[in-house]
Amino acid sequence: MTPEDLERFMRRAIALATENVEKGLGGPFGAVVVRQGEIIGESANSVVQLNDPTAHAEIAAIRLACQRIGSFNLEGCVLFTSCEPCPMCLGAIYWARISLVYYANDRHDAHRIGFNDWLIYQELNKSHEQRSIPMFRLLAEEARVSFDLWERSAIKIPY
Amino acid sequence: MTPEDLERFMRRAIALATENVEKGLGGPFGAVVVRQGEIIGESANSVVQLNDPTAHAEIAAIRLACQRIGSFNLEGCVLFTSCEPCPMCLGAIYWARISLVYYANDRHDAHRIGFNDWLIYQELNKSHEQRSIPMFRLLAEEARVSFDLWERSAIKIPY
Repeated sequence: MTPEDLERFMRRAIALATENVEKGLGGPFGAVVVRQGEIIGESANSVVQLNDPTAHAEIAAIRLACQRIGSFNLEGCVLFTSCEPCPMCLGAIYWARISLVYYANDRHDAHRIGFNDWLIYQELNKSHEQRSIPMFRLLAEEARVSFDLWERSAIKIPY
Repeated sequence: MTPEDLERFMRRAIALATENVEKGLGGPFGAVVVRQGEIIGESANSVVQLNDPTAHAEIAAIRLACQRIGSFNLEGCVLFTSCEPCPMCLGAIYWARISLVYYANDRHDAHRIGFNDWLIYQELNKSHEQRSIPMFRLLAEEARVSFDLWERSAIKIPY
């Protein structure tokens, strides 16, 4: 992609973010997934609109792109996001095998306008006991069965 | 919740995981969201089935629970997941404001059967340049407009 292409796609992500706020639809975040110079999925944040805490712009754009090409694998695709991805969205980017990410605002900018991405980044590195949402282990032995089954399965589709 | 309740809900999450593998529908992961002793959302992993890399059991269960109660806020709810959440799902747990998490298998167990949760936890702590999916900043000045707009907006719904 030429520098002009990069700026064009990022401007689209920023426009989605701006429009979202102007229309009162949700947070100032937009994202665009590009494959071979073409937008195959784009979205603004729609957490409030859809009552879906996972409906961040990047997650929604990735889901739409995957539906568009009929695959859970976005290898070779580039993601343009108007703000540095939070840990949830960064995880999704890895699972989707996006090849490259461009972002505009960063997590510190997000923090300044009241979004807690930065806090979640910190929480991830804490031990389970120290986190603000505590996590406890239960029935580990019983759960092993499903993993053993997966390892032995002849019909599984690895992903 | 009594210890019997805890084990009952975790067994449901494990059963969803096991059934998913037995039927060849997807990975060995299941999750259940409980509010006031009642399951309000549950799902197995359906990444392959739906061509959706974000369709992990926890994300799907959270989305269903939110639809069920008509809110993006699951404060007071408990999540039971058959495996320790990956960074994407842990992020979703924070955004959904789940109050407590129980898990059975952990990230090391998942790594042993070929799931890269562990790798993504490591990637999150690297600088952008060192990550296997590189990230670059672009048009930071232009993007600030959407954030300024959000701060000044009289119609925004904070979340």
